[in-house]
Amino acid sequence: MNEATDFQSTWADRGRLLISCPDRPGIVAAVSRFLYEQGANIVQSDQHTTDPEGGRFFMRVEFQVDHLPDREQELKRAFQHTADTFQMEWRMTLAARKKRLALFVSKEDHCLQELLWRWRIGELHADIAMVISNHRDLEPAVAPFGIPYHHVPVNKETRLEAEVKHLELMKDKVDAVVLARYMQIIPSRTIQAYQNRIINIHHSFLPAFVGAKPYHQAHERGVKIIGATAHYVTEELDQGPIIEQDVQRVDHRCRVEDLKRIGRDVERLVLAKAVNWHLNDQVLVHGNKTVVFR
Amino acid sequence: MNEATDFQSTWADRGRLLISCPDRPGIVAAVSRFLYEQGANIVQSDQHTTDPEGGRFFMRVEFQVDHLPDREQELKRAFQHTADTFQMEWRMTLAARKKRLALFVSKEDHCLQELLWRWRIGELHADIAMVISNHRDLEPAVAPFGIPYHHVPVNKETRLEAEVKHLELMKDKVDAVVLARYMQIIPSRTIQAYQNRIINIHHSFLPAFVGAKPYHQAHERGVKIIGATAHYVTEELDQGPIIEQDVQRVDHRCRVEDLKRIGRDVERLVLAKAVNWHLNDQVLVHGNKTVVFR
Amino acid sequence: MNEATDFQSTWADRGRLLISCPDRPGIVAAVSRFLYEQGANIVQSDQHTTDPEGGRFFMRVEFQVDHLPDREQELKRAFQHTADTFQMEWRMTLAARKKRLALFVSKEDHCLQELLWRWRIGELHADIAMVISNHRDLEPAVAPFGIPYHHVPVNKETRLEAEVKHLELMKDKVDAVVLARYMQIIPSRTIQAYQNRIINIHHSFLPAFVGAKPYHQAHERGVKIIGATAHYVTEELDQGPIIEQDVQRVDHRCRVEDLKRIGRDVERLVLAKAVNWHLNDQVLVHGNKTVVFR
Amino acid sequence: MNEATDFQSTWADRGRLLISCPDRPGIVAAVSRFLYEQGANIVQSDQHTTDPEGGRFFMRVEFQVDHLPDREQELKRAFQHTADTFQMEWRMTLAARKKRLALFVSKEDHCLQELLWRWRIGELHADIAMVISNHRDLEPAVAPFGIPYHHVPVNKETRLEAEVKHLELMKDKVDAVVLARYMQIIPSRTIQAYQNRIINIHHSFLPAFVGAKPYHQAHERGVKIIGATAHYVTEELDQGPIIEQDVQRVDHRCRVEDLKRIGRDVERLVLAKAVNWHLNDQVLVHGNKTVVFR
Repeated sequence: MNEATDFQSTWADRGRLLISCPDRPGIVAAVSRFLYEQGANIVQSDQHTTDPEGGRFFMRVEFQVDHLPDREQELKRAFQHTADTFQMEWRMTLAARKKRLALFVSKEDHCLQELLWRWRIGELHADIAMVISNHRDLEPAVAPFGIPYHHVPVNKETRLEAEVKHLELMKDKVDAVVLARYMQIIPSRTIQAYQNRIINIHHSFLPAFVGAKPYHQAHERGVKIIGATAHYVTEELDQGPIIEQDVQRVDHRCRVEDLKRIGRDVERLVLAKAVNWHLNDQVLVHGNKTVVFR
Repeated sequence: MNEATDFQSTWADRGRLLISCPDRPGIVAAVSRFLYEQGANIVQSDQHTTDPEGGRFFMRVEFQVDHLPDREQELKRAFQHTADTFQMEWRMTLAARKKRLALFVSKEDHCLQELLWRWRIGELHADIAMVISNHRDLEPAVAPFGIPYHHVPVNKETRLEAEVKHLELMKDKVDAVVLARYMQIIPSRTIQAYQNRIINIHHSFLPAFVGAKPYHQAHERGVKIIGATAHYVTEELDQGPIIEQDVQRVDHRCRVEDLKRIGRDVERLVLAKAVNWHLNDQVLVHGNKTVVFR
Repeated sequence: MNEATDFQSTWADRGRLLISCPDRPGIVAAVSRFLYEQGANIVQSDQHTTDPEGGRFFMRVEFQVDHLPDREQELKRAFQHTADTFQMEWRMTLAARKKRLALFVSKEDHCLQELLWRWRIGELHADIAMVISNHRDLEPAVAPFGIPYHHVPVNKETRLEAEVKHLELMKDKVDAVVLARYMQIIPSRTIQAYQNRIINIHHSFLPAFVGAKPYHQAHERGVKIIGATAHYVTEELDQGPIIEQDVQRVDHRCRVEDLKRIGRDVERLVLAKAVNWHLNDQVLVHGNKTVVFR
Repeated sequence: MNEATDFQSTWADRGRLLISCPDRPGIVAAVSRFLYEQGANIVQSDQHTTDPEGGRFFMRVEFQVDHLPDREQELKRAFQHTADTFQMEWRMTLAARKKRLALFVSKEDHCLQELLWRWRIGELHADIAMVISNHRDLEPAVAPFGIPYHHVPVNKETRLEAEVKHLELMKDKVDAVVLARYMQIIPSRTIQAYQNRIINIHHSFLPAFVGAKPYHQAHERGVKIIGATAHYVTEELDQGPIIEQDVQRVDHRCRVEDLKRIGRDVERLVLAKAVNWHLNDQVLVHGNKTVVFR
């Protein structure tokens, strides 16, 4: 919510510091002092602690400093001292350096279209490096955008072979992966190569329905609310850290097709939000949950 | 939503016809003709079919007819002919005849207070015949309302004994039961005696969490939405027909206590809605789901 | 919500009867009897009365009858007798007969894209006859869909001249008009020619802000919620019958650009819903308000 | 959302620092360094800037420090130096020191009941010093809580006389005022005496309706959403800084009574949230808007 969509002359000098460490007194003081001494102005700062006594501390600072692109390495070296003192896991990013995305799709286009549209009007601050699909169906939808479309067929036998192909395609070209209704399981090597950088979207219900045809099950059960969950992909299927969720009301008049249609609308908005927050470094992962600084 | 909260001089003449039968042509024509010939004016009418070809048809008609209280039996007898023709399950109710409720509670008071407050200001068109609890804690909260409070202790050994006591207390005095955070399992005899007339409220999450301490589990998983479900009680625990659901947003800053607090707010509003719809005969049960004519 | 998105073999035989008349006993009986005698099966029926005593009655019946396309004129003639008895305003439509839309746009594309995408995947049961714009900007966005794009420049002096052009373009080709962020006032002749058939979308706030730069005003005032309203266009600017509204939460961190971005998301979903309901004959107008049978 | 509802042994040592000043580099560094040097641990910290270049900076820090009650004055003196450097408006509060509330009511009880119930179960961390009303109607509702109820009749002629009485009653006993559906205008002296400390709740609509009988106007206009706004009271009626807003969906079936009933539910929840945030020092006022650190 706090991201510029219009880019100012100074956007190149906008940096972000993402920190996670054991909580103890003095962290904010040390970080803010470091930035002050470097001549940086804090534009936005968010903190969270799981417990002031012995918990874990999370921090995202957005700052502005002259000549950031030139000084990036120097700042990183300088910060390492503070980081060591507090046993920080940390990273520093440049707001102007766009993350490169690979979009994985199958046959359904609603999430893909949503992302492409937002990308074209400048709402998605990323480079879309490629679209990868196990089908050819969505190739025409991607063509007008001039983005490479790679068709990599997958079946049970060829899953690992396909993965090799995926990893080759993405090597040195992709910072994060968005599964925009990609209906295949992601193998372990990919998950490890892009840890906490693969975002998936799936339907959600109150209560949850396990197994095939979830919309049919939800219809059978007469749920009054359906939703969608965007999460990072982990080895445990659909159990990774939740980034965002949202819901829509439904009622007894909704047929299975209506539930699916309404589900599509929730999915594409939830996925777009989650991707945006990831691109803006607003999501920190803590175990199997997320801290989202909105 | 379409119920009068202020009672007009003619409220005594307001009736409702609830129908469910195999769908086929001519049902609405037959029902509306019957009412017209009886001098009744249709105030509100809702229909739903699961499938026009071979599905089940549901209908709720609210009508106004002079001298309804005197003519009730005559109308019911007269309608039986139409009902037989279409193999209807049906009932006719008088809007002015308040349903008698038993509220079951344990120690938490948020749902109880919500129902008592709405009842006192006239939003809950019911007689609250009694409050039954396995604890004495909420007796003082009920006292000012002049409603009998029955303390019936329950433990694993005494569950069936307690049920006998419950059924005695409610005999001929109670039309429907509301489990307003009653933390005991309802035994089969009670469920059968009050089929589709026992309303329960429980927390709901995306995804669902099975087992103990669900709010702790939801906190562990970092859910972004928590909700509540009001449903009719069936033999299968918490799996009965859903009447209403709603949700609230939460985030990483919420501690378990915050989730519980927010959960309470959702629960009491969802339960109050579900109870109101039940009292107004707006809920029809179809297998394990509901048709709610709002 | 109750519309088929997949078309069955029998879709051609699906009809809709839309009625509005003074409320009095016997209307439903007469209508349902008429349909029954014509061999039609009621698939869905919704009614609403503003007041059972002296109010106005609204009804939408969706029915299925063999050979509807062939029997359309005969059915309409036959129904006129019933209609006269109850002083009905009414119309009968065929579900399979797609309404023809003209989309009016200016420079912003979010509503246009949303409608085009839904139309392409079959969610919008309409023919899009043309796009009309006072600018050339969105011509490339429309081109891939093969829909005629008419550029009709408008300024204060040429408003009526442009209207003549609009009316010529749409003559015999357009059943309804969607103002998908068209930033010009619609003149009277067009409003009268397409009464209750021109749908507009605009931002809405709590409270409302009159005058220029509403998002700036909302930002100044620190609103916590922003919304959008879809309504039929009447002579009184932005005061026509409301079809649908929705909102999103915002907070102090949102800059004007963020409010606009969030506003776009609300606008396109609200407009898409309103257009869909109009296409499915789910909206009846009553004075300056609507009855929406969802 | 981040407030403890259960009080720990260390709650007495929990402090809050609220700051607003011109934005410039070094503020966070100075504040966090001050706290660190005082042996305080930051539990929660939120910042907001209206513009990093020449804007205004807002900060709320929640900290834990041993023996806070004893050290309060010393800490305040010590901080003044930092405050002066940055031209801060600031205050330091003790979380354990409950704010004292006066609740103003007229005849409607929904907001009063909501606040009393939350207060009793410990959700409202305040002392309710008194209830003041221009009517006697709600005296019985307050009696069981043992809170003084002052009946101060008000009419056009006696408005200023009544104000004198109000100010006398509240002198040295009240930190903040909640207008829980108090249907009288608050005179200037009271507004000035309790600047940004009088919270009002009122209905809100899309669009807004000015003048008498707003629910009737909303019904006439056929709105699809109704809401409520909690705001600080300023001299300009209902135009003060907005603290919170929320909405509920309504439709054509809602009569004026239904809109009012639904409006009550929104009002009481929105007011309870706003009061809670005020009590927890989560609301900072900036001109005519608020920064709410949730």
